[in-house]
Amino acid sequence: MFSEIAEFHAWYRERCRAQDYRTSKIPIDEIDGWLTDPDSGNLVHRTGRFFTVEGLDVTRSGRAVESWQQPILVQPERGVLGILVREFDGVPHCLLQVKMEPGNVNGLQMSPTVQATRSNFTGVHGGKPVPYLEYFTAPRRGRILSDVLQSEQASWFLAKRNRNMIVQVDEDVPVLDDFCWLSFEQIDELLREPNLVNMDTRTVLAGAASQRFRPTDLTADTFRGAMARSWSPGEGALHATVELLSWFTEAKSRCTLTRERMPLAKLSGWSRVDGELVHDRGQHFAVVGVDVRASHREVTGWQQPMFQPRSQGVIGFLTRRIDGVLHLLMQARTETGALDSVEMAPTVQCQPDNYRLLPDDRRPLFLDELLGAPPERVRFDCVHSEEGGRFYHAENRYLLVEVADTFPMEVPQDFAWVTLRQLTEFVRYGNHLNVEARSLLTFFGFYKEDER
Amino acid sequence: MFSEIAEFHAWYRERCRAQDYRTSKIPIDEIDGWLTDPDSGNLVHRTGRFFTVEGLDVTRSGRAVESWQQPILVQPERGVLGILVREFDGVPHCLLQVKMEPGNVNGLQMSPTVQATRSNFTGVHGGKPVPYLEYFTAPRRGRILSDVLQSEQASWFLAKRNRNMIVQVDEDVPVLDDFCWLSFEQIDELLREPNLVNMDTRTVLAGAASQRFRPTDLTADTFRGAMARSWSPGEGALHATVELLSWFTEAKSRCTLTRERMPLAKLSGWSRVDGELVHDRGQHFAVVGVDVRASHREVTGWQQPMFQPRSQGVIGFLTRRIDGVLHLLMQARTETGALDSVEMAPTVQCQPDNYRLLPDDRRPLFLDELLGAPPERVRFDCVHSEEGGRFYHAENRYLLVEVADTFPMEVPQDFAWVTLRQLTEFVRYGNHLNVEARSLLTFFGFYKEDER
Repeated sequence: MFSEIAEFHAWYRERCRAQDYRTSKIPIDEIDGWLTDPDSGNLVHRTGRFFTVEGLDVTRSGRAVESWQQPILVQPERGVLGILVREFDGVPHCLLQVKMEPGNVNGLQMSPTVQATRSNFTGVHGGKPVPYLEYFTAPRRGRILSDVLQSEQASWFLAKRNRNMIVQVDEDVPVLDDFCWLSFEQIDELLREPNLVNMDTRTVLAGAASQRFRPTDLTADTFRGAMARSWSPGEGALHATVELLSWFTEAKSRCTLTRERMPLAKLSGWSRVDGELVHDRGQHFAVVGVDVRASHREVTGWQQPMFQPRSQGVIGFLTRRIDGVLHLLMQARTETGALDSVEMAPTVQCQPDNYRLLPDDRRPLFLDELLGAPPERVRFDCVHSEEGGRFYHAENRYLLVEVADTFPMEVPQDFAWVTLRQLTEFVRYGNHLNVEARSLLTFFGFYKEDER
Repeated sequence: MFSEIAEFHAWYRERCRAQDYRTSKIPIDEIDGWLTDPDSGNLVHRTGRFFTVEGLDVTRSGRAVESWQQPILVQPERGVLGILVREFDGVPHCLLQVKMEPGNVNGLQMSPTVQATRSNFTGVHGGKPVPYLEYFTAPRRGRILSDVLQSEQASWFLAKRNRNMIVQVDEDVPVLDDFCWLSFEQIDELLREPNLVNMDTRTVLAGAASQRFRPTDLTADTFRGAMARSWSPGEGALHATVELLSWFTEAKSRCTLTRERMPLAKLSGWSRVDGELVHDRGQHFAVVGVDVRASHREVTGWQQPMFQPRSQGVIGFLTRRIDGVLHLLMQARTETGALDSVEMAPTVQCQPDNYRLLPDDRRPLFLDELLGAPPERVRFDCVHSEEGGRFYHAENRYLLVEVADTFPMEVPQDFAWVTLRQLTEFVRYGNHLNVEARSLLTFFGFYKEDER
């Protein structure tokens, strides 16, 4: 444990030095262990396991572009993302690990206690056993705080879900190299640093966000006070939960999205250039090959395909006090790869560069309000990475902005004002909050007690 | 409105006389408007709309039979099942309609206010407009009591869902022929009559079950008292809701079910005999053709394929008082066609005849306890029909049995004890309670106040 956050940073730097790794990009047709299927052009592992890169034909999306084709990651097997919690002197701490992922811009980030695909724990890699896995598989000791199948980036994955778990134990837990206990307050500080707390940790912690709430400041006329009231069961929400669920059902009823898997080689608008599969206008993302050498992973070296976004994304909530209670402007978003096609998403979630060549009226709603907010209204602003195991240098700017009371209460039909309390109900059930919204919920949950 | 239930029955008999219809079975290759696809043998409507009958290959089910092939109904489009509620003298009433469905054993049953596929309301039939639909489509007047996409019979449908809605209005509503207002108490009486309240009404009313609870008798040492405590938020549940959600997630993680659509003509174990597609051992169900002549439907006559079960099913909950609070023994069941493969189901849900040729150790768990319960422990016992628009004479015996205190609390891993209060949380979210469990929840919700 660290009594000061500076101690963590010293430990983190030391672990970075100790972990010897390097990654480099290689042509996708030279990825060791991966084959291009001669018929479809799909990228498949020689064992048929892990994941595949296939094509997806999307029509009637109802989004800024109605129809398109794109590569998609298909990974039917589900992994476990698990965080172990234990109290020390009455203060809950999470066991996190510093872990190298090939797609990380900075190599090592703080991961959950367990971050393992089924291939990991059934030994397909031929690697080492997954430490701490026994705390997350039945029969378990410990108390379940959260356990739900949650979706992942639906722009790049087809119906991918992982099991998100938080388990609290009272017993002593041996702490292996590369692992450390961090208090919720310490994690809160780390969440304000770019690219340090990885996506898997953020999505799992969304399941603990409500437990972070302590009913102080319920009367304060501050952002923090409005947030406290938004967590509180007793305070007024603009819409009853049944109305929000109806709004969500209605959005699913409106959704006309159809999607069909198709051969990667047949994709229109995508070409193989210099060993990558790229979009013809240089937008969206590319499929690239990556070579990894590492000393601390289950295996010491491998090669794999990854998705590399062409530009930084923007993900954020507009928030507004309504009768003193903080409300978030939630979007019911048609999600390309989501199991149920529509999920609850942040107000804005896009790569602005993808809209550069489109007419102004296709520009994402509320993007300008989010990016143009005056500094005194920006409550959170930090760049974080998406999953470094599948995405290469995928950075998003995460924002929480509080709009003025003059901001209209009336919003377009795909949007609704919700409280934090309502979000913590939805996050208990899978297929409701998308991964981007869950990351932002974690930032709220771990939001520092004092105003900055 | 009816002041006595006898008045309803007189009205119902009169409506039955007024509705002129007949149904008869015809060979499946002679169904007017339907084609057998020359390549696959699938049954498809000439417009490509409505639904198709295709083949499904099921493997690694983890059920009594590990792998099989079967016909399956594929109906991607979602309909609306909606019930309009209005208070008269402070007493809520539901607007139900007496409706002919070709599969009903007795022709007419009590249906929701609106029971319409998208083809119905977009006019593909070329039929009459759907009355009262405007109360259920945006922009709506009225107050939403329930609105959720719910699954239907996953043994026969692939990922079929309908939107289940209850909308309450204060305004006057014109009552058309074949429609009537029934109070919850009157519906309670009708639920005790065989084959009178149709499946669509039962599943929609599950969304209102919790609103039926009135906190009387919270201390009574009776089944009714134990039920009242089971509805009540303040009373103890054996498992916290987060534990039940974890149990459900765990069951999904164990599930290995794979299913692939396949040509109907290629199914192993099924043959065309006498104009029907039948299972080679005469079990499960048959695909049959039905000719319908009716005066009161959107169109006056049509033909269609239907599924006809070969035997009556049994669907029931074992219930048990735990510290005085009624708990239901819920099953996390691998469901052939369910979107997410596992749903929460009643303790027992099967056609016993399908197990006749299997070894005793494959017999469904708890079937004998359910069927062998002494009469004084049977709290509900009534035969009801499944959807008469797709299923021909599909009857199930619905049972609620209260077991003795000597019944073990420890249950196999696919089972868990849950309270009614917990069920009413799960029913708000789609893909949790299956249609059979929702029917039983409605029986609980509308359970008569007094002990019988």
